[in-house]
Amino acid sequence: MNNHAHDPIGVFDSGLGGLTVVKELIHHLPNEKIVYFGDTARVPYGTKSAETIIRYSRDIVKVLLKNKVKMVVVACNTASSLALDVLKDEFDIPIIGVIDPGAKKAMEVTRNKKVGIIATSSTIKSGKYARKIVQLDKNIVVTSQACPLFVPLVEEGWFDHTVTYQVAEQYLGVIKKNKIDTLILGCTHYPLLKQVLHQVMGPKVQLVDSAQEVALQVKELLTRDGLLRTRLGPCQHAFIVSDEPKQFQRLAVRFLGGGVKNVRRHVYV
Amino acid sequence: MNNHAHDPIGVFDSGLGGLTVVKELIHHLPNEKIVYFGDTARVPYGTKSAETIIRYSRDIVKVLLKNKVKMVVVACNTASSLALDVLKDEFDIPIIGVIDPGAKKAMEVTRNKKVGIIATSSTIKSGKYARKIVQLDKNIVVTSQACPLFVPLVEEGWFDHTVTYQVAEQYLGVIKKNKIDTLILGCTHYPLLKQVLHQVMGPKVQLVDSAQEVALQVKELLTRDGLLRTRLGPCQHAFIVSDEPKQFQRLAVRFLGGGVKNVRRHVYV
Repeated sequence: MNNHAHDPIGVFDSGLGGLTVVKELIHHLPNEKIVYFGDTARVPYGTKSAETIIRYSRDIVKVLLKNKVKMVVVACNTASSLALDVLKDEFDIPIIGVIDPGAKKAMEVTRNKKVGIIATSSTIKSGKYARKIVQLDKNIVVTSQACPLFVPLVEEGWFDHTVTYQVAEQYLGVIKKNKIDTLILGCTHYPLLKQVLHQVMGPKVQLVDSAQEVALQVKELLTRDGLLRTRLGPCQHAFIVSDEPKQFQRLAVRFLGGGVKNVRRHVYV
Repeated sequence: MNNHAHDPIGVFDSGLGGLTVVKELIHHLPNEKIVYFGDTARVPYGTKSAETIIRYSRDIVKVLLKNKVKMVVVACNTASSLALDVLKDEFDIPIIGVIDPGAKKAMEVTRNKKVGIIATSSTIKSGKYARKIVQLDKNIVVTSQACPLFVPLVEEGWFDHTVTYQVAEQYLGVIKKNKIDTLILGCTHYPLLKQVLHQVMGPKVQLVDSAQEVALQVKELLTRDGLLRTRLGPCQHAFIVSDEPKQFQRLAVRFLGGGVKNVRRHVYV
């Protein structure tokens, strides 16, 4: 077993959304300790430029490394799309994003080879999902759609609001016309809108949320590198945010369903 | 005339919204040069904590001072609510916000002494508008409502969308019940929703947008201190943003109606 096996897994996102990935990690890797960084003072990333997102992601990986993480999960689709390659070049620990696992799962799920992707403006603009899917299977036809209002709607807690259905109808119009059978939820906030998305897309369309697939890839990687934590018993996860911890703690319950303690603040200097 | 009269006026906001104030400044003070700072890499402020907003505002005033501004207009309701007092204490030039002018105008406009305020969550939570209005006239009854989805709706360009009407109906429900005759648009993005707000509130309710009042207060202050720029002729305004200039330039047209040149980037170190 590697010396670092007992070190925590670092996970980061622009804000709270990455907690959907944390939830799956806890489920699939119950012995692992997690250090989560939510960049709540600079959220959202989805409307900002590649250069800015790369700079922010780099800052965060440095903070996670100070917390002695053995690997980093970029649990933010925007940062995975725009910063993952740079981070992998610059840092010497395993780093995985959410795009490849999501694309792989969509490829496995689709039968008619028509896949839709919904995400933030920056993720869609990067074209990463579409390229990855076509790279896996060049016969798959991809339709992409940016959905900028979904994150604010989730943060407002309007998971089942008439307005949310109407916004979804508008955004998903073109994707529906293209008769996809698989829809990638390309933003970690979107799993909270599953009910709306199911209803708007109809029962024949499978929703792909990369969180579970990411957890399985993390497990595979840790096993391969002898980095699985074998010590049994409950772990004290740690949460670091760049803005006020209290607000984070209150909202995090929507994602993790309670039990978010040990939240501290990191102030950029 | 003061030595600094030919120096520019500094204006800042978390993003683009403050351009509604710039528009009024240009209209009322056509000889003045403006240096505008939009904190597009850290936008929005309205969901963040007081501590973070104070830190960000302080950073920006320092940048404006390096650009030799003779005064600063905090053209952001959230920063005016949470950071103005600290900024006035720390810096040695005239600094004015948008809360006091908005409150004063509402007091002048209302006849039934029932005033509504809509703004971001942080502005509403600060209670600044309500306190200022009651301080001006203790008989005025104030109803406040945070409208977190309005900024994303404006940024999506859905100024006249069915969804925007429905969101407005929901947010303004309580305010309507309280039979106000004056509604303060307590966020610089909201003037772009005037059409929707007029229709939802009805023709008897006056909408108060502090931008014009702010411009008049700036004029008064500059006149009093001998700081009015008297050199005639067109000014080359300057725009500084913390994220990508191109995106700003493209969207700024919605606020200023064209003519946004000379946009450069400031990267925080």
